Amino acid sequence: MSSTATASAHANIALIKYWGNRDADLRLPVSGSISMNLGDLNTRTRVTFDSTLGGDTLTLNGQPQGGPGLERVRLLLERVRTLGGIEHFASVVSENNFPMGAGIASSAAAFAALSVAASAAAGLDLPERDLSRLARTGSGSACRSVPAGFVEWHPGTGHEDSYAVSIAPPDHWDLADCIAVVSAEHKATGSTQGHALASTSPLQQARVDAAPQRLEKCRAAIQQRVFAALAEVVELDSNLMHAVMMTSTPPLLYWHPPTIAIMHAVQRWRGQGIPACYTIDAGPNVHVLTEQSYAAEVERRLRKIQGVKDVLVAVPGGPARILP
Amino acid sequence: MSSTATASAHANIALIKYWGNRDADLRLPVSGSISMNLGDLNTRTRVTFDSTLGGDTLTLNGQPQGGPGLERVRLLLERVRTLGGIEHFASVVSENNFPMGAGIASSAAAFAALSVAASAAAGLDLPERDLSRLARTGSGSACRSVPAGFVEWHPGTGHEDSYAVSIAPPDHWDLADCIAVVSAEHKATGSTQGHALASTSPLQQARVDAAPQRLEKCRAAIQQRVFAALAEVVELDSNLMHAVMMTSTPPLLYWHPPTIAIMHAVQRWRGQGIPACYTIDAGPNVHVLTEQSYAAEVERRLRKIQGVKDVLVAVPGGPARILP
Repeated sequence: MSSTATASAHANIALIKYWGNRDADLRLPVSGSISMNLGDLNTRTRVTFDSTLGGDTLTLNGQPQGGPGLERVRLLLERVRTLGGIEHFASVVSENNFPMGAGIASSAAAFAALSVAASAAAGLDLPERDLSRLARTGSGSACRSVPAGFVEWHPGTGHEDSYAVSIAPPDHWDLADCIAVVSAEHKATGSTQGHALASTSPLQQARVDAAPQRLEKCRAAIQQRVFAALAEVVELDSNLMHAVMMTSTPPLLYWHPPTIAIMHAVQRWRGQGIPACYTIDAGPNVHVLTEQSYAAEVERRLRKIQGVKDVLVAVPGGPARILP
Repeated sequence: MSSTATASAHANIALIKYWGNRDADLRLPVSGSISMNLGDLNTRTRVTFDSTLGGDTLTLNGQPQGGPGLERVRLLLERVRTLGGIEHFASVVSENNFPMGAGIASSAAAFAALSVAASAAAGLDLPERDLSRLARTGSGSACRSVPAGFVEWHPGTGHEDSYAVSIAPPDHWDLADCIAVVSAEHKATGSTQGHALASTSPLQQARVDAAPQRLEKCRAAIQQRVFAALAEVVELDSNLMHAVMMTSTPPLLYWHPPTIAIMHAVQRWRGQGIPACYTIDAGPNVHVLTEQSYAAEVERRLRKIQGVKDVLVAVPGGPARILP
């Protein structure tokens, strides 16, 4: 016997960053974070619990996976089997429509889609917050790819109350994320190892202590749709995370030469009246947020910067969902 | 009547940085710092107190100066006139042998040479610590260009005990500073304004709180000549200062694309067994410290990096001194 379900989820870009866990196993973060789902960057995942399987299997973009990647998926499937009273192994087949390992947080979309597909295939009808908590245990930022649009992850006090909720629907604000791809290489240090280094920076505690004020400013800027206020807090928060990264032991310097060129350019453009701000995840690519009416102009300018290999443009996306 | 004296002083590169004052007028720093004089980068300054002058004058690299530059010099001359009981105005003629305004701390050498020349021209025979204190009031880091070789600036409790002392003579350790010049432009935000922004960063206090440990590590690495230990603390301290700069309001992002390219390259070279580490002042240029036996190889490699316009090489320098 077998039961199957397919789900899709979007990547998300953190506007207020997640960096550092207070519980690494449960991926309970040291502070809250806010993100926007990226409607044009999707992962589509099919999960099939099948009594004939001798073990869980994972196929990613057509390639069978083993090792730590499969192990992370297996741990999440174990949680679903426990919740659903299922004993069969599962095959997981997942595909992204965007490049992996270049700081576009492929694991967030992947674990959000996996959580939704696996729980449906297990016959569970979980509320959004439970799906978000489940996704969080696979990849912290995946909890933010479960709800729709603009999303806030409440750090909570434990596994029960650490999940993400939508703070505004996708059509609340016509923003666009112009992602300047400067490298499609795999990261030298992945996020999971990076989170573990956050506490070695002498700056991490100060960053965390001031997070509530940044969350408040970002939430207000989104709710009131004030781009200048969003730009200021988003760039500060990105710089704060990279400040912690580059002062941890060992230091993590994710920026490449074009990363800096884009940071300077975006600040220059804003001085010229273009609503644009940058934010950078654990990789060299730069996410340039703008209003949708400026997206074509921002994309055009980004493509002229030396070292920019491609530009992906995404608008606010909906929730993770079951596909028919 | 007139009295004249000429002095020279070296630029210095901070190994543990000075960023932020607790008293801006007296340039009393929030924490101590350690530097190395750069023996091949000099300022030569002649001061002449002259009863026929109707005001102080300043000529810098052959160009008459007015405005804030002259005003800073005038304030220092006032201190010297008070100390020496002199009423005449002075002409100051100063020349650097290195490019100005590109983060090579021209003001440090300039105010060290000015302090030594002006006090001699005023007939004062001040001990080194008094010359260092005097230089500090013109430009904080200038106090470190007064003593010889490897120098530590004790923050002190007030004007009386905030001065720099030599912790090792120039020949103590055969280091070289290979300065990769990536831009000779004037800084958009000078150090004096920058220091005033330091306290707006949520990270500054954490940087300052942990400064004593970094000073201790750096001092020990110099005293015991352990390059690996020096490299670790020097790069961390540089990154900490730039972390504060890029998270202040407004943010200061001094790095350019080649700055990042050099930071990555230096870390790669160290992995290959070359003793090299980077440190960056308030500008885009990168100071790459190495042992003198590796200086030619480091210079050769730096010149091959895109965006590097020139490389200056300096070895540890002596104190500010009167020229015959």
